Amino acid sequence: MAGIFQRSLRLRTALRHLSPQSPLSWAVTGRHTPLDLHCPFLPSTSWQFAACSRKLHTGADRPSPAAAPDRLPFSRITQEDLAFFRKILPGRAVTDPDLLESSNVDWLKSVKGSSELLLRPETTEEVSQILKYCNSRNLAVNPQGGNTGLVGGSVPVYDEIILSTALMNNILTFDSISGILTCQAGCVLENLSLYLEDRDYIMPLDLGAKGSCHIGGNVATNAGGLRLLRYGSLRGTVLGLEVVLADGRVLDCLVTLRKDNTGYDLKQLFIGSEGTLGVITSVSILCPRKPKSVNVVFLGCETFEQLLKTFQLSRGMLGEILSAFEFLDSECMRLLNTHLKLRNPISDCPFYVVIETSGSDSTHDGEKLHHFLEEAMTSSLVTDGTVATEDSKIKALWSMRERVTEALTHDGFTYKYDISLPVERIYQLVTDMREHLGDRAKSVVGYGHGMEIST
Amino acid sequence: MAGIFQRSLRLRTALRHLSPQSPLSWAVTGRHTPLDLHCPFLPSTSWQFAACSRKLHTGADRPSPAAAPDRLPFSRITQEDLAFFRKILPGRAVTDPDLLESSNVDWLKSVKGSSELLLRPETTEEVSQILKYCNSRNLAVNPQGGNTGLVGGSVPVYDEIILSTALMNNILTFDSISGILTCQAGCVLENLSLYLEDRDYIMPLDLGAKGSCHIGGNVATNAGGLRLLRYGSLRGTVLGLEVVLADGRVLDCLVTLRKDNTGYDLKQLFIGSEGTLGVITSVSILCPRKPKSVNVVFLGCETFEQLLKTFQLSRGMLGEILSAFEFLDSECMRLLNTHLKLRNPISDCPFYVVIETSGSDSTHDGEKLHHFLEEAMTSSLVTDGTVATEDSKIKALWSMRERVTEALTHDGFTYKYDISLPVERIYQLVTDMREHLGDRAKSVVGYGHGMEIST
Repeated sequence: MAGIFQRSLRLRTALRHLSPQSPLSWAVTGRHTPLDLHCPFLPSTSWQFAACSRKLHTGADRPSPAAAPDRLPFSRITQEDLAFFRKILPGRAVTDPDLLESSNVDWLKSVKGSSELLLRPETTEEVSQILKYCNSRNLAVNPQGGNTGLVGGSVPVYDEIILSTALMNNILTFDSISGILTCQAGCVLENLSLYLEDRDYIMPLDLGAKGSCHIGGNVATNAGGLRLLRYGSLRGTVLGLEVVLADGRVLDCLVTLRKDNTGYDLKQLFIGSEGTLGVITSVSILCPRKPKSVNVVFLGCETFEQLLKTFQLSRGMLGEILSAFEFLDSECMRLLNTHLKLRNPISDCPFYVVIETSGSDSTHDGEKLHHFLEEAMTSSLVTDGTVATEDSKIKALWSMRERVTEALTHDGFTYKYDISLPVERIYQLVTDMREHLGDRAKSVVGYGHGMEIST
Repeated sequence: MAGIFQRSLRLRTALRHLSPQSPLSWAVTGRHTPLDLHCPFLPSTSWQFAACSRKLHTGADRPSPAAAPDRLPFSRITQEDLAFFRKILPGRAVTDPDLLESSNVDWLKSVKGSSELLLRPETTEEVSQILKYCNSRNLAVNPQGGNTGLVGGSVPVYDEIILSTALMNNILTFDSISGILTCQAGCVLENLSLYLEDRDYIMPLDLGAKGSCHIGGNVATNAGGLRLLRYGSLRGTVLGLEVVLADGRVLDCLVTLRKDNTGYDLKQLFIGSEGTLGVITSVSILCPRKPKSVNVVFLGCETFEQLLKTFQLSRGMLGEILSAFEFLDSECMRLLNTHLKLRNPISDCPFYVVIETSGSDSTHDGEKLHHFLEEAMTSSLVTDGTVATEDSKIKALWSMRERVTEALTHDGFTYKYDISLPVERIYQLVTDMREHLGDRAKSVVGYGHGMEIST
């Protein structure tokens, strides 16, 4: 079934069955060894750790034979194939190398494929026709959303046909009583957010790449993001999916029921399967109401230990209104200053924290936040801070966290790792890597979010 | 794979693929036509509707040929089979008809199987040995948890071997920092709750049958229950499962990671699959912290329309602290009075509501609740009410909702339906059914919960 998708989850699935007692299980994705390291000890702070190399690797680098999977025995595209695609997708079967360039290279410019054909379907029926044809002709396919992934999973390895969801960007229905949104897979996350905000709702997920990433890609990769702390994972909020299987069959699991216990929940298989089982074409998702009161604080801590204590304190004192807890280190701040001209809103500190609260009563939220800040300052957990309640200042404070990845790309070639480790030991990795890499790295930074169930 | 499980999801899975545009999709489970009716319009109030017949059907009734599935060509148990089971489960292979009786009949006494063998394994390895043997011998198996299900799905149809998880009741690990509990499938929900409360945590689900139901059965049936409104579904809170497949192989998905994106999320297939794909032997589940402040109010409404307006008002004014909204009608109250001697805590009303709040600040929660009650009384949405903050009174108010099912069993033979419909039309079903059934039913009642994402 998944035969025509070149990208392989071989390592990932094999590693899934490692004993949970093993100290570290990990998954290797992409080719330049970006690692997802997971550790069974929890609570973990899922965060990013990045090192910028002094040598700039250009996107033109082909994957080294050691890192790339073998090209499987797929067919090569013929003139007859092109004629078929041009017929079913008039003007939307792209072969111009200049136009293909951006779809062949990932956002970090770390890997590059050599696809010679980009297909831009608009409908599920077109996706079905494409996959049915490719399956019969044994042509490899690379589904692509916003191409904002950071592990090289969104671009071809060799000459796979790129199937882009970019033109599948229609909102299909929105029920303003239930908050259930149904849309095509290519809708950009930020566009959905703007659409919902006008209707007093928000998307249950948010991430730095929101201006480009597609909801279909978010679901296919089971993206967590900045609101996971409060609104939970896509496994709970995605109510239905429409998926085209590799042979072109359309699997309609696009229900909009709050709970559906009739039969097996097949859509779960596609959440997080990264396009290997089929192409997600439509999504129905349960959206929370826009909170009446939102506050953001930006704090500075002297040590990582104090930062962790600040996290514990915020969980206890902010409780059910805590909607985000993110951190970045002083090296991240330096890169934000240098490359994006973002000014530190507080005095210089080794560590910075972004805390967001979302609630239904601004007076109560303000009081909870006030008591928390008072306690955090009195007990010297934080040394400086600023609070925002206005939209523009909230956005400015959030950008200090959201634009770290962007700042890194300006600093040089980036090796970026998504890691889960026991919180008390996680930052040790950064200091160890700084020591280990020495002057071979321009900068080694740490940033990320604390994940917990909302209580 | 699922061959040796007699119980079939044929109808349920077939119906899953009905178009979501059809006005009503439904699933038929059990044999005396208990129906799960689902409607794609939302927000739905998932609730129960029950009719008590004037004629008492005894548990001894065999299923009518029209309602029961055919007995598939499974083997009959031989003396050699019994010898094998007695050897691997010394003293735990039960054949005494008196002891088997309660495992052959469901809680509502609506259906009865004729199993002649009840197996009570204590370990995953024993479950594996049982299933491997049954698979090789083509013997049908009926996995059974607490046998508290209300749709006849937990007991044999014919002579299937009953595989009970009752003796698999060990808590394996609990991490008091992350709140992750790992336990065997046969742990009783209430025992887990009591264990956690001592450690300042709670289970993310709660239901009326908590004193008997097993966590493995809760997961296998994807039970929603009374805390779904606040803590979401088991698809988000269950982090890992250990499952024994029909051929005896053990599938170890018992990870305790807050988020695991390595490979396909196979455990999701078993959540809600009702034992048809394998037997769940262990569960790891993320538990929320015990809320610092809990309030319960019991209110009376004159009309169902006012009850719905009360629900909307509570969502807006109680926001993130609203953790439950349940209702029952005056007929339920009459049965609680008559059969269980539970006294109505307020004056007589056509409809009653139980609202629970859970928060981190008792002053704020009290204020929110006060403002909500003031508004609900001023605008005449509710006519009477009482508030509880003490544990004993909270329990007493909750029992008015939790013990309705029990009261119904004392009233006669019960036909019970779990239904989702658009909230504004859902109670119409009760009045229509009262009219339709006339004096053929002793009582027709409605009760249930409002489901929404926490905002």
